[in-house]
Amino acid sequence: MIETPYVLFLGDAPDQLAAKVAQGIKDWRPENAVAQFRLPGCGADLGLTDMSLADAKTAGAKTLVIGVANRGGLISQAWKDVLIEALEMGYDLASGLHNLLRDEGDLVAASQTHGGTLHDVRVPSVGYPIANGRKRTGKRVLAVGTDCSVGKMYTALALDSEMRDRGMKSTFRATGQTGILIIGHGVPLDAVIADFMAGSVEYLTPDNDPDHWDIIEGQGSLFHVSFSGVTMALIHGGQPDALILSHEPTRETMRGLSDYTLPSLEELRDTALPLARVANPDCQVVGISVNTQQMSETDAVTYLADVEKRMGLPAVDPFRHGAGRLVDALAAL
Amino acid sequence: MIETPYVLFLGDAPDQLAAKVAQGIKDWRPENAVAQFRLPGCGADLGLTDMSLADAKTAGAKTLVIGVANRGGLISQAWKDVLIEALEMGYDLASGLHNLLRDEGDLVAASQTHGGTLHDVRVPSVGYPIANGRKRTGKRVLAVGTDCSVGKMYTALALDSEMRDRGMKSTFRATGQTGILIIGHGVPLDAVIADFMAGSVEYLTPDNDPDHWDIIEGQGSLFHVSFSGVTMALIHGGQPDALILSHEPTRETMRGLSDYTLPSLEELRDTALPLARVANPDCQVVGISVNTQQMSETDAVTYLADVEKRMGLPAVDPFRHGAGRLVDALAAL
Repeated sequence: MIETPYVLFLGDAPDQLAAKVAQGIKDWRPENAVAQFRLPGCGADLGLTDMSLADAKTAGAKTLVIGVANRGGLISQAWKDVLIEALEMGYDLASGLHNLLRDEGDLVAASQTHGGTLHDVRVPSVGYPIANGRKRTGKRVLAVGTDCSVGKMYTALALDSEMRDRGMKSTFRATGQTGILIIGHGVPLDAVIADFMAGSVEYLTPDNDPDHWDIIEGQGSLFHVSFSGVTMALIHGGQPDALILSHEPTRETMRGLSDYTLPSLEELRDTALPLARVANPDCQVVGISVNTQQMSETDAVTYLADVEKRMGLPAVDPFRHGAGRLVDALAAL
Repeated sequence: MIETPYVLFLGDAPDQLAAKVAQGIKDWRPENAVAQFRLPGCGADLGLTDMSLADAKTAGAKTLVIGVANRGGLISQAWKDVLIEALEMGYDLASGLHNLLRDEGDLVAASQTHGGTLHDVRVPSVGYPIANGRKRTGKRVLAVGTDCSVGKMYTALALDSEMRDRGMKSTFRATGQTGILIIGHGVPLDAVIADFMAGSVEYLTPDNDPDHWDIIEGQGSLFHVSFSGVTMALIHGGQPDALILSHEPTRETMRGLSDYTLPSLEELRDTALPLARVANPDCQVVGISVNTQQMSETDAVTYLADVEKRMGLPAVDPFRHGAGRLVDALAAL
């Protein structure tokens, strides 16, 4: 559990894209984003107030979140100076970088001296159990994709946001480092030991009120041979009541696998649903989430109408048109 | 890579079952088993010569393998005395115990002083790559089960043995600690980090001669919600040319999951084959391996004949009747 709210460290990000973790926090949990902190030459701007660490502290920030990718895989001295100053002022630090805060001797020393916590969200901090498969109370929805990186996290966050707006009970359950930093907690599933994957998802989505929805962040794809085991563990550990199919129609080959083409939405449905029903016999596919960012508005609308007719399910791009119709389908379950 | 041959340490095993790792080594790689070493009160006997560590060394043994489960999760002082003596004499040690040799200070000290290696086969010793999904040369077969612990390892070892007897090119590829100790190498798949599971299976089963068979040890089951992710990674990382369906007909619920019943062999076939074809479009289900140890010979023969007729595939219990007909089916591919 990372203490919120945050000051978002953008460092010397060359451009906006490099700060996409910080952007995600600001977009989805603006209440967690007190201020931004930038170094000279920073090319990113979230539109938040630039504050000194001292001013952000006065404004209530508890944790400095590294919201930017680092170049060359090293934590530079310019970054270090800020991070150590933050620890000296009583901040915790949180990072999703590949190179870990805990592997940096000077940061460890400063955290020990000043009592701040170093959160490396790529690394599990819990000894997860082996899954027991017992039916849990409450409702769960999971997005499964024809490929990796087709918008499953965005879909989940949009569902959660729409449910909150409607006053429904909902929790976004993060399974990757960006999602974990956005909300401050979750399971870094791709770093969990094989035997405990499904158990970590059960741990993440415990018993809840009958009308509460866990919106589980998807990972990988059953059709992506590098990561399909992670997806399988989400389907069985999450025991979803509802699946949403996620797709990016302009992609020609699987991400990082140029020899592999994408499955159709029908193939995805016919593969994922029987597997999900092993853990939850009542599971239904309730809708389709399409990432149409590479398509014109006209093409997107036409494509979505075609898919909707073909599949007999609501098909939307939640970024373009909101997640309302997907939430309607979930609420109708 | 564990140096062979071995002296098999049976310790104070209360009965034969507690020494099943040692039994597996003796059954499947008798050339690796120079001798057994027993403590007073040992209730297990492999029928090997009891030797002192010195005599076993003279007879060629390179590694002392702990071929027995320990009681209470502690490595006792009685064991320690033998293990330290073995290190002093120049042996390596190998263990599949949950509590690791490397966590025992006195064993670490002795191994450093005398140069012996401590092999904890439950823990990966390699930084595995992320799977790339590229088609590899050579043939691969994988057993997939309706449940965990239905005889997949036995089936794989029996296939490998039969292929060797016929002069075919074959390698048993171990994915669990017992299999790794039997042959001296492999991947402890259940202990691999999620993102690298499929990659570790690719690493385990590299390019090979076109007529060479990798016999990949199966793990878990697509229908076992605790471990299905591991099975999925084997199917996609292994890119098998052939699947064998494994089943234990008398089991009423999934192992460790009393709320779950087993799927039919048809369900297993219809689930596993499309998933396997994602990685290898030519994959075929070639036969069925049934563990009939809970059935009389008559019942077993009747059951196997029924399954064979129903599924249109050779159905055998390789323990009772040998793996010959399964190898026939693989050779005919």
